[in-house]
Amino acid sequence: MTSNFRVVIIGGGFAGLTLARALRRAPVDVTLIDKRNFHLFQPLLYQVATGGLSNANIAIPIRSILSRQSNARVLLADITGIDPQRKLVHHKNGTVPYDTLVVATGSDKFYFGHDEWQQFAPGLKTIEDALVYRNKVMMAFEAAELETDPAIRQEHLTFVVVGAGPTGVELAGALADIKNLTLKHDFRSINPRDAKIYIVDAMDRVLPTYPEDLSVKAKASLEKIGVTVINKARVTGITDRAVTISRDDKIETIPTRTVLWAAGIKASPLGRILSESSGAETDRMGRVIVEEDCSVKGHPEIFVIGDLAHFKSGDATLPAVAPVAMQQGRYVASLIRNRIQGKSMPGFSYRDMGTLATIGRNAAVADFGGLHFSGWPAWLIWLFVHLMAIVEFGNRLLIVTQWGWNYLTWRRSARLITNLCPDDCIKPEQAPPD
Amino acid sequence: MTSNFRVVIIGGGFAGLTLARALRRAPVDVTLIDKRNFHLFQPLLYQVATGGLSNANIAIPIRSILSRQSNARVLLADITGIDPQRKLVHHKNGTVPYDTLVVATGSDKFYFGHDEWQQFAPGLKTIEDALVYRNKVMMAFEAAELETDPAIRQEHLTFVVVGAGPTGVELAGALADIKNLTLKHDFRSINPRDAKIYIVDAMDRVLPTYPEDLSVKAKASLEKIGVTVINKARVTGITDRAVTISRDDKIETIPTRTVLWAAGIKASPLGRILSESSGAETDRMGRVIVEEDCSVKGHPEIFVIGDLAHFKSGDATLPAVAPVAMQQGRYVASLIRNRIQGKSMPGFSYRDMGTLATIGRNAAVADFGGLHFSGWPAWLIWLFVHLMAIVEFGNRLLIVTQWGWNYLTWRRSARLITNLCPDDCIKPEQAPPD
Repeated sequence: MTSNFRVVIIGGGFAGLTLARALRRAPVDVTLIDKRNFHLFQPLLYQVATGGLSNANIAIPIRSILSRQSNARVLLADITGIDPQRKLVHHKNGTVPYDTLVVATGSDKFYFGHDEWQQFAPGLKTIEDALVYRNKVMMAFEAAELETDPAIRQEHLTFVVVGAGPTGVELAGALADIKNLTLKHDFRSINPRDAKIYIVDAMDRVLPTYPEDLSVKAKASLEKIGVTVINKARVTGITDRAVTISRDDKIETIPTRTVLWAAGIKASPLGRILSESSGAETDRMGRVIVEEDCSVKGHPEIFVIGDLAHFKSGDATLPAVAPVAMQQGRYVASLIRNRIQGKSMPGFSYRDMGTLATIGRNAAVADFGGLHFSGWPAWLIWLFVHLMAIVEFGNRLLIVTQWGWNYLTWRRSARLITNLCPDDCIKPEQAPPD
Repeated sequence: MTSNFRVVIIGGGFAGLTLARALRRAPVDVTLIDKRNFHLFQPLLYQVATGGLSNANIAIPIRSILSRQSNARVLLADITGIDPQRKLVHHKNGTVPYDTLVVATGSDKFYFGHDEWQQFAPGLKTIEDALVYRNKVMMAFEAAELETDPAIRQEHLTFVVVGAGPTGVELAGALADIKNLTLKHDFRSINPRDAKIYIVDAMDRVLPTYPEDLSVKAKASLEKIGVTVINKARVTGITDRAVTISRDDKIETIPTRTVLWAAGIKASPLGRILSESSGAETDRMGRVIVEEDCSVKGHPEIFVIGDLAHFKSGDATLPAVAPVAMQQGRYVASLIRNRIQGKSMPGFSYRDMGTLATIGRNAAVADFGGLHFSGWPAWLIWLFVHLMAIVEFGNRLLIVTQWGWNYLTWRRSARLITNLCPDDCIKPEQAPPD
């Protein structure tokens, strides 16, 4: 049934995977290339970082998602180059020809030119990042339990989250749950409630992309569970012992051993590779500027979708969120099917379904088409929306069980300190071998 | 209520944890020291290694297990020395005094003097080991899918398990399930069923410690699902490309990229540390030879239990299995309670409740007091026994769900290639920090 029209997709995130699945009945051969063997449900990554979920709960093997789709194959490979003239994608182990290429490799952590902060303040993008976060947080309590000097003990019990967007707010909320509930009875020398949690952001409110009344409610929810919110403060330094911030032109220092980075993102390196070979323009974050149909200027057969794409929508660009990525994936699938039939299509337009962020156990804020929710009702909506979203990829049953269990018991059963680096662990650049 | 009689337990495995819990109503102060923050349910480690379970399913935070036990505290620390004269345990961050010391740090991988094999044939003792196994197995199929040379492709699709004890047999069975069922529809260039699985052992039968008829049945079960059983064969060499074995004085070579070590164990290094400071005798595996009451000769206040103990039972020594460890833990708890009341106790005797091993989906062999089971009934018994055992430590609900899910769908949802070594991962010797 399938013709030889070859669609090659780089990246198995929300954009690439949605596109591949939307092409399941199209007369094309789909090749999806990713350097990892799983799709990562990023909106719940902070739950892995704080021990609420296991990595297998939110990472689903791409092969199993596309297992029954006979016109799709999956390659686990690192891309080394793109050749738009000969329509080839090069990877470490070979070359794949394409008729249509879609690049959807997303975004990466960004330290605003201060890469030296990364060693002290890990970011949260990969499963490995989440385990580094979890280890840092859990080890901080362990170190405090062993420490006898009260000043150093308090340093161990101080957590600073940099960035008050959705990830930062959700992280700070989960940290508050850990100190208030999860670890309540676990220590003998320290009281986990003595832990201090700060969230620091340069903007004038938390969740700056949300409607203002929800920012106010989110701030109140954070403060209610013991998080100190510091706005209009720029981080000027991070070491293994402290964070320095500048607020109202005054420099302040917060002594801490645990800084969690939830601030900047930049485009994945594939943006630069594509730009150099195809002449595509990029913005200052490294994202590829795309046309109205998500294609690259001068290359109607090359598309960029998801976080890697800079898509103008009025005066702004579309945000780097999963709904944009998934809608663009579905759009490009329709466009490919139409093109094969010789039909044209109007440009992509984003339908904003609303925004949601959760703040610890029981609280959340939500905006659906002008209707604003907060507290318990928003938390239930948040739960429902995320479960519905993740069901498409098949892990719902496990997550519901794990969440139910955690919720009833206040436990975070995944609060293991693992990922200790064995001598024979696989370095990212070694995967795949040969 | 608690007096100042101090019981210090080193090791939070089956022996140490059972002992700590059995002392929950005793008038003692319990300190449990472990270098990891979780108890590992080792009998199911091969399930994590083959993607059937997540690490959080079989690793339970020690603090949460002992959370409500007010006479127990937990220290996450690396032991550096034992001083029997002054009754002190030294760890990296300080010193802990004891009245009674129990050492239960278990066993480690052993390569029979060929440590150079470890880099090619990882063993299976820790959570990290299990992820290394999983990565190796999953990457082998990925590499085969990308490979165009048929000979090299077959090397990628050849798996050799060294050691046909329970761990080796269970591993080989799970590998067969992966190639026959789990990955059935996942690849386009290779057929996972073409994978070859060998299990190699120097003894004349699989499961050599089991009754002979069960060995015969286990071998038949393995062969039925496509595993090649090679007995009376000594491994003489392992490289990244092949395993060399000597059988009937003939040398044979099996080309393979994936060798899984399930053969030898040796005592944990604490055995040597204790022996040097207390004069305790050790056997050639490094295990501490103990008295009839599990104490060290000349030191009635120091006990060694679990895999680290060499306990004579008639002509043999007790095997390194969880039931021995747990019964010894309960015994020493009784002995401590009795001693405090001035009472004496008879020596420890092991009550053998039977043995069990599973061979892939649906098959197992079991021996309960002379009653032998195989096939489906044994598999159901195996499932029941393991669930009952793990419930004590609290993770049953999740495991049942995950197993049920895997069983109904043939999926192994945890077959992720993770544990890639980020630059900032925590090295074992760094934990805990400071």
